[in-house]
This record gives sequence, structure tokens and C-alpha cells, in this order.
Amino acid sequence: MATDLSRRLVAEALGTAMLVAAVVGSGIMADRLTDDVALSLLGNTIPTGAMLVVLITILGPISGAHFNPAVTLVFALRREIQTKAAIAYVIAQITGGIAGTFLAHTMFDLPILQISQAVRAGSGQWIAELVAAFGLVFTILAGLRFRSDAIPWLVGLYITSAYWFTASTSFANPAVAIARALSNTFAGIRPLDVPAFIVAELLGALLAMALAGWLLSVPKPEPEMKAAQ
Amino acid sequence: MATDLSRRLVAEALGTAMLVAAVVGSGIMADRLTDDVALSLLGNTIPTGAMLVVLITILGPISGAHFNPAVTLVFALRREIQTKAAIAYVIAQITGGIAGTFLAHTMFDLPILQISQAVRAGSGQWIAELVAAFGLVFTILAGLRFRSDAIPWLVGLYITSAYWFTASTSFANPAVAIARALSNTFAGIRPLDVPAFIVAELLGALLAMALAGWLLSVPKPEPEMKAAQ
Amino acid sequence: MATDLSRRLVAEALGTAMLVAAVVGSGIMADRLTDDVALSLLGNTIPTGAMLVVLITILGPISGAHFNPAVTLVFALRREIQTKAAIAYVIAQITGGIAGTFLAHTMFDLPILQISQAVRAGSGQWIAELVAAFGLVFTILAGLRFRSDAIPWLVGLYITSAYWFTASTSFANPAVAIARALSNTFAGIRPLDVPAFIVAELLGALLAMALAGWLLSVPKPEPEMKAAQ
Amino acid sequence: MATDLSRRLVAEALGTAMLVAAVVGSGIMADRLTDDVALSLLGNTIPTGAMLVVLITILGPISGAHFNPAVTLVFALRREIQTKAAIAYVIAQITGGIAGTFLAHTMFDLPILQISQAVRAGSGQWIAELVAAFGLVFTILAGLRFRSDAIPWLVGLYITSAYWFTASTSFANPAVAIARALSNTFAGIRPLDVPAFIVAELLGALLAMALAGWLLSVPKPEPEMKAAQ
Repeated sequence: MATDLSRRLVAEALGTAMLVAAVVGSGIMADRLTDDVALSLLGNTIPTGAMLVVLITILGPISGAHFNPAVTLVFALRREIQTKAAIAYVIAQITGGIAGTFLAHTMFDLPILQISQAVRAGSGQWIAELVAAFGLVFTILAGLRFRSDAIPWLVGLYITSAYWFTASTSFANPAVAIARALSNTFAGIRPLDVPAFIVAELLGALLAMALAGWLLSVPKPEPEMKAAQ
Repeated sequence: MATDLSRRLVAEALGTAMLVAAVVGSGIMADRLTDDVALSLLGNTIPTGAMLVVLITILGPISGAHFNPAVTLVFALRREIQTKAAIAYVIAQITGGIAGTFLAHTMFDLPILQISQAVRAGSGQWIAELVAAFGLVFTILAGLRFRSDAIPWLVGLYITSAYWFTASTSFANPAVAIARALSNTFAGIRPLDVPAFIVAELLGALLAMALAGWLLSVPKPEPEMKAAQ
Repeated sequence: MATDLSRRLVAEALGTAMLVAAVVGSGIMADRLTDDVALSLLGNTIPTGAMLVVLITILGPISGAHFNPAVTLVFALRREIQTKAAIAYVIAQITGGIAGTFLAHTMFDLPILQISQAVRAGSGQWIAELVAAFGLVFTILAGLRFRSDAIPWLVGLYITSAYWFTASTSFANPAVAIARALSNTFAGIRPLDVPAFIVAELLGALLAMALAGWLLSVPKPEPEMKAAQ
Repeated sequence: MATDLSRRLVAEALGTAMLVAAVVGSGIMADRLTDDVALSLLGNTIPTGAMLVVLITILGPISGAHFNPAVTLVFALRREIQTKAAIAYVIAQITGGIAGTFLAHTMFDLPILQISQAVRAGSGQWIAELVAAFGLVFTILAGLRFRSDAIPWLVGLYITSAYWFTASTSFANPAVAIARALSNTFAGIRPLDVPAFIVAELLGALLAMALAGWLLSVPKPEPEMKAAQ
């Protein structure tokens, strides 16, 4: 990729900021407007999924649109990104994510600096995060293998689904988890609970990478067959 | 298809597991968060439809993404899959489906082994399942004939619609019906009621196959005309 | 088009039946599950829009997927369908639509024969129907001109929108209006109010045809420019 | 572009009218049907996003489908539209937008002439509008650079998201803001508050233009790489 690193890092930071602003901001909006928590979750899910489709489409050609240290780790292990660049990506993602939280607070006239008190812990939550990240990374790797133009939609739809079927509402992203720890609102998570989430997410990502290494080593469908999926 | 049977079976099991985890898991999540049953059904519908688009896109090139014994039966009768492989597919689908239920229970800290007590019976329900499976199989066969690249979306959108317009909320899948019998939650079905559902689903699938055999035997649209649909 | 008329008529009848079953069936389901009418309308909107995308994709290559006498009228006036075939289309649409209502009632264990008592009348409603049909027909004609492969999505999304922004919830279809008059449920309309709806719909369709005749007579975008829309 | 200015202006006016009719009309419908404001916002969001996908697809090939003076300003500054035409575009957009409000009022049997009394002011709201317009214009410019066929979806999904994550529900459009000032309904805004919204929107648009000028000056992905986003 001939794009220089500075543009790639700005794309990663901008994309993660917009993603977190969408997650945290829509959570605040939904929570303010209704007492029904399922409706709040729906008002949190739809903007997040929609934003992912947009961000991956428009920033993917610049940085690959990882926005997620677990994804960057997998690409680093697959030697598709250099270690140095990968580390810079992760720093950009975390910085961008925190900026996204601050931006959401600013727009909603809330104190910028907050610490979440929302408990999210226990084996069910951790397994949920492992499953969420496993599915996300497997979706990306299989998408790259078979239908790379569809990846923005695949990721947006996968997260739309995972918000509801994983008990943790699918953080699936260490940078986003850190950013959400700094918001004591609907989408928050107690800082104390973040490390276990991150461990589970990385384990899920590695598991997906291992399975993909075997399961996806099939003949690439020819155009006609590809169409036939 | 040159893909070996072991990968195809893993794809069928994995896909059906993720599908059932999405159906059962989102049902539990939605049911916990609201008292409004229509909102629960919406929180069950959107994740299921979204997950279907993802799974069919990423696993279709490996196994064909049946995830459904009624679909496998139709392809076996059309001699597009060998009988032996078809039987293995069905076993993988049922096994995967049950694993999906167990996974959902684990994530939501529920007892893993459960038996549903939700009564789903009566002529209206059975006709609904016949209609649901008829529409699903006809959609797949017509999609394969005219617009095979769109099949993931067609199936996801069809099931999104069928959740609401069929009185049974459209199981339309014997493997999923069996897996849902093992969950005493929002998406469950009493085991006693499963056999009639399966009979109705298979009848609907066969009816769709028969109609498609006649109705779809039309000139394939040329690229320009195809675009004009 | 080389497809014989019998297959085309079956496609029109089947498609209109499935469309009406989706409209009426999802209305019954939604209305039963919640007391919130906005939620009922959402549970009516999403299945209808999704079903339209599916039906137009899979039946378009057979019959053109009109499912709507107002659309057939416009194509007849544009001499894109012969008068005799057009009349047969309309009969197939009305017959299929009524069958769709009966099917929905059967699935939901309701009396098959019903007469709606829902008053839908007044100048606001009639203007709404004119606007709804105008937008629908203009969308179809502009889609055919510029981006014909997108028509299933364009129609599904247009109707999704029109359910909410037109005061009449956008019937926009004489065959569907007749079929809905035979259901005393959420989606019903009093038979007495149907004729004025049909007049408004036909006027809207003709207005769209007139505007399209002038506004769309522009250079067709070249592939690159087309992509640039 | 060989299309004559009169057709382009009619397309801009028609598109902005339909967009505003969707925004204002769905707001009235949703507000009437439920007391839950989050549900009203959802019933306002989905029709708006869906309508944007439709309008940009069908009118883009005629006028470029700006429907928004902030967008027209950016294209004028980039010398992609002549100043004279740009001024005419803005007049057509404002005129069309107001006609859309009147149309919505007519359909819902409300007084045609209204003045909104909804206060929308304060630094949070203004920052939100700046962010909303920044994201919208950056999405359009990046879409044009990398994936121009996807722009209708990108804009529709971006606005769907921005309705929820910006505190102002994302007007992001001076012509639409003016039109909404003339409706004392769910989507309204007090005329007194419009000028600050417009300033924030134009600033956001210019900021996006500046960032895009640097960030998007990367090698255009080749077809294969493009597919790989």
C-alpha cells in the first residue's frame, strides 16, 4: 500500500472516533428519550451498524479500516501489516476512541470527563465477548477471502446482530471498550471490567484466525460460482 | 465443488450454530429488556435477518450455506448434492443448531439444558410453517436462477418479513426447530409440537420445488435485461 | 419478452398474494403483540419493505413484477405491455391480492371472509394516496432509466418511507387496496373508501408518467458517471 | 454535464421537497401514534434514511442530488459547479424544501402555514450540527473518491446514524432547516434558532472539505484492491 502512514493513522483515529461517538452518542440519546431498555438498545444498535457500513467504505481504501486493536493484531500476526505500523494503529485507535467519547459528551452537554460505573462482568459476559470478537474477525477474514466488496455491509450487519445475541451487547473491540469506560452513560463499562473484556476479545480474535486458517483454505469461487453463493 | 466434505460439514455446523445462537440469544435479550412483545419480536427479527445475510455470504462459498435440512432435501432431490453428503449435512445442521442453543444459554447465564414449554400448534400454525418454508425455498431457487449474488440479502430479508406475516414467526427450518425446542425462552417451542412443524416445513419446501420447476423455466435474462429487473 | 403469458400471470398473482399476505399478516401480528400503534406500524412497515425487495428481485425476470394495476396502466400507456396482457395482469393482481388476504386470515385463525370497517377518507388521505403513487411510479420509471438493477431496493425503501410520511400509510396500489378492504384488521380499509383511493392512485401514477416523460429525457450516464451518482 | 439547467433545478426542487415531506410527514405520523419519544424518533429516522437512498439514486444522474446548500457550496468552491448554477440550486432547494413542508401539512390535514416553537439552541446543539454536516460532506467526498456507486446508501446510512448520535438529530442541511422552521410539529425548529444552525452546518462542511483535500489524496485503489475494502 502506497498510502503514507500519517494519512493511515489519521484515518484510523478519525474512524474510531466517529464509531465511538455513534455508539456513546446514540446510547445517550436513546436513554434520554425512553424508559424501555429494549428500545434504547435498538436506538443504539441501528446507528452503530449504519455508521460501520459508512466508515469502512470511506476509510477502508486509506487505512484498511481496522478501528479495532484485535483486528490489527490479527493482521500483524498474518504479516499483512508491519509491527511498527500496527503499534501506531493501536495508539491511533485508542486515542481516536477516547476523542469520540469526549465529542459525544460535548454534543449532549455532559461533563467531558467521566468514569463509568456500569458493572459488566462474569463468565457469561466474558464468553459473550469471546464469541462476539470471534464472529467479527471470522466475518472479516472470510469476507476478504470470498467477497471483499461486501465487507462494510458484513461488519455492519454482524455487529447489528451481535448487539442482541451476545449477553455483553458485543463490544468486540479493545479500543472501543477503553473509550466506553470513560462514559458513565448507557454504553459505559466500569474500568475495572475492561481488562477481562480485552482478554476475551483477543482470545476470540485469535480463535477466529486459527479456524479461518483451516476452513477458508478452499478453492476461491470462480466469478460465476461466486455469484452463486 | 472441489471443497472437501469435512470443511463443508464444519461450515454447515458453524453456520447453523451461529444462526441459532442469534435467534435464541436475541430472543432472551429482547425478552429481558422489555414487556412489549412486539418490541421483543423486533429485537429478535433484526438480528436474525442480519446474521443470515452475513452467514450466507461468508460460508456459502464453502458449503452452499444451507443451514436447513429442508433446503438440503430439495437440493438432494434436484441431484445437486449427493445423498450421502446430504445426510451428513443434516446431521451437521442439527448438531450445530443444538450447540447454538447451548452457547446462547451459556452467554446469558442460563441452565444449558432446557426443554421448552411454549405451545405452538394448530392448523393456523402449521399452514404458516408451510407458507414460510414454501416462500424460503422458492426465494432460494428463483434467486439461484436469476440473481445468485443477491441470495444472502434475499434470504435475510425474506425471513425478516416472515417473522411477522406468518402466525408461527417462521421457523421454516427443521434443524432450527429442534434446537429451539431445547430452550425454554422467547424463541422456544414445545418438543411435542416440533414434528408437525417439520412435516409442514418439508411439505412447503417440496411445493416450492414443484412450482419452481415450472415457473422458473423461462429464458434467463441477458445482462441488460437482468439489470432491468 | 419470450416468457409465455401463463407464467407471467402466475408470477403476478403469486407476487401480489405474497405482498398482501405480508401487509395484512404483519399488521395482524403487530396489532396483537402491542398497544403502541407506532410500534404496530413499524411491525407492518419492515416486513412489507423487505418482502418487496425479495418479490421484485425473484419475479421481475418473469413478469416485470408490477403487482399493481397503476404500474401496469402506466406501462400499457407507454406501450411497453400490450393492452390484452395488461388487462390479464390486472385481473391476476386483484385475484392474487384477495388470495393473500385469505391466506393471512387462515394463518392467524381468523374468519376468512371479512369486510373492513376502517374509515380512510378525506382530502388529506386522497392527496396522500396521490403523492404515494406519484412517488412510487416516478421511482420505478427513473430507476428503469438510470439504475435498473437497483429497482427492487428502490421500491422496497420507497414504500418503507411512504408508510410513514403519507397520511394514508401509502396503499399506492389499487389491487392491494381492494384486497385490504376484505380484512377487518390493522391494515384494512372500508370498501366504501376504496374507489376514491383508486382514483387518487391512478392520478398520481399518470402525473408521475407525465413528469418522467420530460424530466428523465436526459443523457444516460456513462458507466463511470453512472457509478458517480 | 449535458443536462440542461431547467431539468437540474426541477430535480433539486423535487428531491428536496420529497426529502422534507418525508422528514416532516413521518415526524407527524410517529408523534401522533405514540407517546414514546424514542419510538417517534425511530419512526422519523427510518423513513428519512430510506428516502435519501431512493432520491439520490434516481435524481443523482440529473442534478447530482445535492438537495443541500452546504453540499452545493462545497462543490462550488471545488469548481465542480458554476457559481451561477450553484445559486440557482440553492434557491431551488429552499423553495422545494418549503413546498415539502406544505405538502406534509396538507396530507395530515394541518394548517399549511405554521411557525415552529421548538427551541433548538446552545453550544451542544451547534457543535452537533457542525459534526453532523462535517460527517455528511466528508462521506460524500470520500464516497465520490473511492466508491461512487455506493453514495446513495452511504448518505442514507450516515443520516440514519446521525439522527441518534448528534444531540440535534442532525439537520445538517440549511434548506431543510429553513423548511422545518415552518412546521410546528415533531421535526420543527424555532426560526430564531435557524441562523446558528446554518452557520454551524456551513462550518462543518468547510472543515470536511479541508480535511478531504488532504486525507483523500491517496492512490485510487485498483479494481481488485477496491473490492478488498
